[in-house]
Formats: sequence, structure tokens, C-alpha cells
Amino acid sequence: MGNHENRTPVTVIGLGLMGRALAGAFLRAGHLTTVWNRTAAKAEPLVAQGARLAGSPREAVAAGPLVVVCVTDYDAVRELLEPLEDVLGDRVLVNLTSGTSRQARETAAWAARRGVTYLDGAIMAAPQGIGTADALVYYSGPRSAFDLHEPTLRSLGDEATHLGDDHGLPALYGVAATSVMWGLLDGFLQGAALLGTAGVDASTFAAFTRENIGTIVDWMSGYARQIDDGAYTALDATIEIQLDAMAHLVHESESVGVSADLPRFFKSLGDRAVAEGHGGDGYAAMIELFRKPSAGVRHQRRGGASTHNG
Amino acid sequence: MGNHENRTPVTVIGLGLMGRALAGAFLRAGHLTTVWNRTAAKAEPLVAQGARLAGSPREAVAAGPLVVVCVTDYDAVRELLEPLEDVLGDRVLVNLTSGTSRQARETAAWAARRGVTYLDGAIMAAPQGIGTADALVYYSGPRSAFDLHEPTLRSLGDEATHLGDDHGLPALYGVAATSVMWGLLDGFLQGAALLGTAGVDASTFAAFTRENIGTIVDWMSGYARQIDDGAYTALDATIEIQLDAMAHLVHESESVGVSADLPRFFKSLGDRAVAEGHGGDGYAAMIELFRKPSAGVRHQRRGGASTHNG
Ligand SMILES: NC(=O)c1ccc[n+]([C@@H]2O[C@H](COP(=O)([O-])OP(=O)(O)OC[C@H]3O[C@@H](n4cnc5c(N)ncnc54)[C@H](OP(=O)(O)O)[C@@H]3O)[C@@H](O)[C@H]2O)c1
Ligand SMILES: NC(=O)c1ccc[n+]([C@@H]2O[C@H](COP(=O)([O-])OP(=O)(O)OC[C@H]3O[C@@H](n4cnc5c(N)ncnc54)[C@H](OP(=O)(O)O)[C@@H]3O)[C@@H](O)[C@H]2O)c1
Repeated sequence: MGNHENRTPVTVIGLGLMGRALAGAFLRAGHLTTVWNRTAAKAEPLVAQGARLAGSPREAVAAGPLVVVCVTDYDAVRELLEPLEDVLGDRVLVNLTSGTSRQARETAAWAARRGVTYLDGAIMAAPQGIGTADALVYYSGPRSAFDLHEPTLRSLGDEATHLGDDHGLPALYGVAATSVMWGLLDGFLQGAALLGTAGVDASTFAAFTRENIGTIVDWMSGYARQIDDGAYTALDATIEIQLDAMAHLVHESESVGVSADLPRFFKSLGDRAVAEGHGGDGYAAMIELFRKPSAGVRHQRRGGASTHNG
Repeated sequence: MGNHENRTPVTVIGLGLMGRALAGAFLRAGHLTTVWNRTAAKAEPLVAQGARLAGSPREAVAAGPLVVVCVTDYDAVRELLEPLEDVLGDRVLVNLTSGTSRQARETAAWAARRGVTYLDGAIMAAPQGIGTADALVYYSGPRSAFDLHEPTLRSLGDEATHLGDDHGLPALYGVAATSVMWGLLDGFLQGAALLGTAGVDASTFAAFTRENIGTIVDWMSGYARQIDDGAYTALDATIEIQLDAMAHLVHESESVGVSADLPRFFKSLGDRAVAEGHGGDGYAAMIELFRKPSAGVRHQRRGGASTHNG
């Protein structure tokens, strides 16, 4: 509302929980905001805040240079946008729907064939975080399109980050970040369960972990350099020595009566690494295991006849 | 060597890789150091640095008030020390051999019956780290004995930490710390493998993880408070919503052809949590799963007839 002479008009298509948060943030930042949703009633609170409600997706796209889409999945995205390729040609389309890297790349290929400038994004925040300083949103696609609209996209969160040209990157960074998150949290819960048997509070162990995490992160960075160099010389303990420590974690967990599932998972990786000849290498060599598809899993390719092994 | 009038004499029993590092650090810090090893030849370099070589474990224990033991395992500890209970009575015995919390507590019970003042410890460093500022060594047992000898124990590393009276704590903190370490590292390797398929360097992802780890650690601390309170209200996404994200991680991993083993492990926990009625709770509720012995695993109790389920 108010003075939006200098601000880029924005269109938001899809007003679910997340789409409403996006449109609300654009409005609060003073952008003329046009919205459309399949179920029109969901637009009402936004209209009350000054949004313009378009009568159709086509009308919504016609309203301005920047079109943000956030619906359930990529099937819904394509269903919505395919009929609009004629009007999308001189727009920048920003798709913030969650999906896989493949779906993002396929949608980018579709957009390229139609001459649509396409940015794919992944939202690493909850709806209530949108528009706050630390809401993280990743983007990829043509840098020039991102640069042009970065000030507007920053309305969603200061942490608007362009990851590269490859449209698959936001999805990949998104899942990679969750992998680190669950890895750390599950490792923590295992430790908390172990220490809990001795009456140690989870908060005490959290404080302890907070103090020591920097060291682990330093090791991680050292291993990362080795992975990039493809040379896995043990910087500290070899995988063979760590396998003893893994067996020890399994044994201790069984001994005090907590779950040994995660410890056994760690150890199964150590066993495999040793079996594959990496016993004398450092932990970085484990990347070789992570790079291989799981046993018995064929590389899946939706709707395509060809297969390859990443 | 030199001036050790004001410094506590120390005995080190066991001169493997680690025992030699311990004795070397005491010598460098100016302590009169008496050593013993089953294979006497391993003492030679230490004797050259000024250590006194005892002719028997008994003679070694007689040499001073503080006796540090570091041998292969607890069986070796007991084999060595049981014949010496008469001379250990007015010593402080510090056992830095690795073992389980149960072994530490059993050894503490043995020591208590003989009137031996006992500290159990766990060394969280490699031999080459011993004596450097950040070598971490945990201790537990009577606080007064730790306080008395803390200045001497600091010769091994500035990070000498007393964890509590319970002799099982160093072993438990030790395995808990490795659990966090492998959790974080494996989560990172999964992410690095995923991003590697798009040509992103592991070092780039390490830098990214370094930036975001603080947020995850903050969540961890929030979950820890909930665990201590026994109330698992979702602070952010419910486990049910996270289960979608776990399925997404599995799917993306399969789709780009990297291992889906770790993602499937994460998801199996999510599935179980939902099956056990925690779908509407926050991630902290997962602790309930970690606290239970793994399916099919009986709580193991060495040499005891009773069983219980932790
Ligand atoms: N909510 C979060 O915490 C969060 C966080 C990060 C990312 N995301 C992602 O953001 C996207 C939207 O999530 P949300 O929470 O807003 O979901 P939601 O509340 O379920 O809303 C889904 C939206 O998609 C629309 N839609 C679905 N199929 C459609 C179709 N065929 N044609 C037209 N519109 C269609 C719905 O329209 P109707 O209203 O007519 O049904 C609705 O506007 C998802 O990809 C989600 O993964 C969500
Ligand atoms: N090395 C590390 O990186 C590291 C790190 C943290 C903790 N630790 C722990 O420190 C302890 C020692 O490790 P280490 O690396 O020094 O092992 P090591 O090099 O294999 O040395 C084992 C020591 O134990 C002695 N020993 C074994 N059985 C004995 C018995 N029955 N009676 C008398 N002495 C016996 C050996 O004597 P002989 O010389 O006569 O064989 C030797 O001095 C282990 O519990 C280990 O887990 C080691």
C-alpha cells in the first residue's frame, strides 16, 4: 500500500499457507501486489491489505514483470503455466514450489523452449518466517534476472541467495541442508539418550555439544578439501581405528539399554569402507560410499527411457 | 629432569602409543615421572628424557601419590592392579584406558571395596595431541581427588574436565561426542554427494554448512529443553511435516543416483515416530525412540543374572 512508485509490481500465484506469506511480505514492503488463487476466497485477507485480485492466471501474469508461483507441486505449476506461455515471454518467472532438482531442470528446459526467463527457488523457512531478516530463500537461474529483481525478492527475507545458473541447485542445497540437520540432530539424540541413562540432562549435553561443534566443523572442512582433491590420507584416525570406536558406540548403547540403530548404521558404513579397501584412509574416503546408489536401487528417471548412474 | 621440587611425582603404567605420550607430557611439564611397561624396551626413549623405569608395577605404584594407567582394555587394567591393592590404598588411581561406562563403574566399585581413590578418564585426543592446549581429557570420580591433582593432569591438556562423581560419565560423554561427530559428518557427506552431482565442490558445501550450523545448534538446544521438560510441542515443523521432507531427501537421492541409505535411515525414524503417535509433535519427541533398546536386542549385562530394559 502507500507509495509504490519506485517498487516493482509483483504477481503471486498460489495462496496456500506459503503463498499468502509471500504476498503479505511483498505488500508490507510496499510492492503493488497482484494475486491469484484457484480458490479465490483465500485472497480475501490479502485484498484487505491492499492486494489486487486477478480474475485469472492470465490476468495475474499480465499485471507486472515479476511473477512468483508457489503451489503444491511441479505438476500444478505446469498445469497452471503451460497455457500462459504467450504472456510469460517478457516476464521473469520465479517458481518457489518445492520439488526435485530434476523437476526444476525440466521446468527450466520448458521455459527456455518458450523464451521465458526462469528462476527456480527453494524456501528454507516456515511461512511465519517469511519477510523476517533471517528467512533463507535460495535461487538459481540466470544471474541477470536475479540481480534485476533481488531488491524485490529481499522482501521475502534478507538472505536471498543466488546459487548459480543450474536450476537444480536450490532443490539440491535444500535437501543437503536437511541431511546435515537430521544427521546432527539424530547424533545428538543418540548422545542425549546415552547420557540420560546416567541422569545427565539433554540441555547439559546440548551445551557440551555447542562447545565442541566447532572442532567437528573444522574436521569437516578438512575432509571436504580432501574430497575435492580426491586424496584421502588420514589426517587423524584412519577409518579402521574409527571402526573400533563405532563398535564401541554400538556396544555402549546396547550395554546401557538405549537404541543401537544409529550406532549400527554408522558402523555398517565403516565396515563397508574397510571392505572396499579404505581402512587405511581418513574419513573423507567415505564419500565414495555416499556417491554410489544404494544396493538394489536403480537410478530412477521419470518418464524417460534412458538410465544412467550418477 | 630439572626442577621438580614443587611438582607432584607421577607414575605411568602402560607405555603403548598413548601411555608414552602421557609420560612424555608429564616429563615436559617437569614432573618426576616413574614408568612401567610389560615390554620394558618401550620405556627407553622416556628414560632418555629423564623418566625412571620401575622394575615392577608394585615398584611403580610405590614411587608416588598419583598413578596413571593406560593399557589396552579394562581386563588388562584389572589383571595389572588386582595384585596391588595393598599398595594402592593411599594413592590416587587415574585410569585412562578406554572402555564402557559399565567397566568404569565396575572398576570403581572394585576400587571402593579396596579403599582406593579412583578417577576414571577418557582421552578425546590422539597421542600426538597430548600435552597441547586443546587436548581434551574427561575425568570423573571424587571431585576432591580431581581438584588435588588437576594441576598435574593439566600437563596432558588444558581441557582437563571433571564431569561428575559417576565413574561412567567419561565413557558416556566419549561415545556421545562420537555420535554427534559421525551424525554431522555423515549428514554432510550425503549433502556433498548430492551437490557433487551438480558439480558443486565439497568445500563450497562445507563453507555453506559452516554458515548454517549455528541455526541447527540453536534448534538442538531448543529440543534439549523440551526433552528435559518432557513436552514436545512442535516449535517449528511437526514430525509429520518433516517426514515429507525426509521422503523428499530419499527421492532426490535416488533421482540423482547417490546413496539413499542415510536418507532412508532418517525416514525410518520419522515413520516410526509417526506410527508411535508423535506425528503432531516436534522433533524432540524422537528422543523416545532413541531411549528404547533396538528391536530384538536384549539389554546385555555382563556376568550378571538380572536383566532390565533401560
Ligand atoms: N508451508 C511450509 O512450511 C513450506 C515451507 C517451505 C516450502 N513450502 C512449499 O511451498 C509450496 C506451497 O506450500 P503451502 O504450504 O502453501 O501449501 P498449501 O497450503 O497446501 O497450498 C497449496 C497451494 O497450491 C494450490 N494448488 C494446488 N494444486 C493446484 C492446481 N492444480 N492448480 C492451481 N493451484 C493449485 C492451492 O490452491 P487451492 O487453495 O485452490 O487449493 C494452494 O494455493 C509447496 O511446494 C511447499 O512444499 C512450504
Ligand atoms: N592411540 C590412540 O589414538 C588413543 C586415543 C584415545 C584413547 N586411547 C586408549 O588408550 C589405551 C591405550 O592405547 P594405546 O594406543 O596406547 O594402545 P597400544 O599402543 O596398543 O598399547 C597398549 C598398552 O597396553 C599394554 N598392555 C596390554 N595388555 C596388557 C596386560 N595384560 N598387562 C600389562 N600391560 C598390557 C601394552 O603393553 P606391551 O607394550 O607390553 O604390549 C601397551 O603398553 C586404549 O584403551 C585406547 O583405546 C588410545
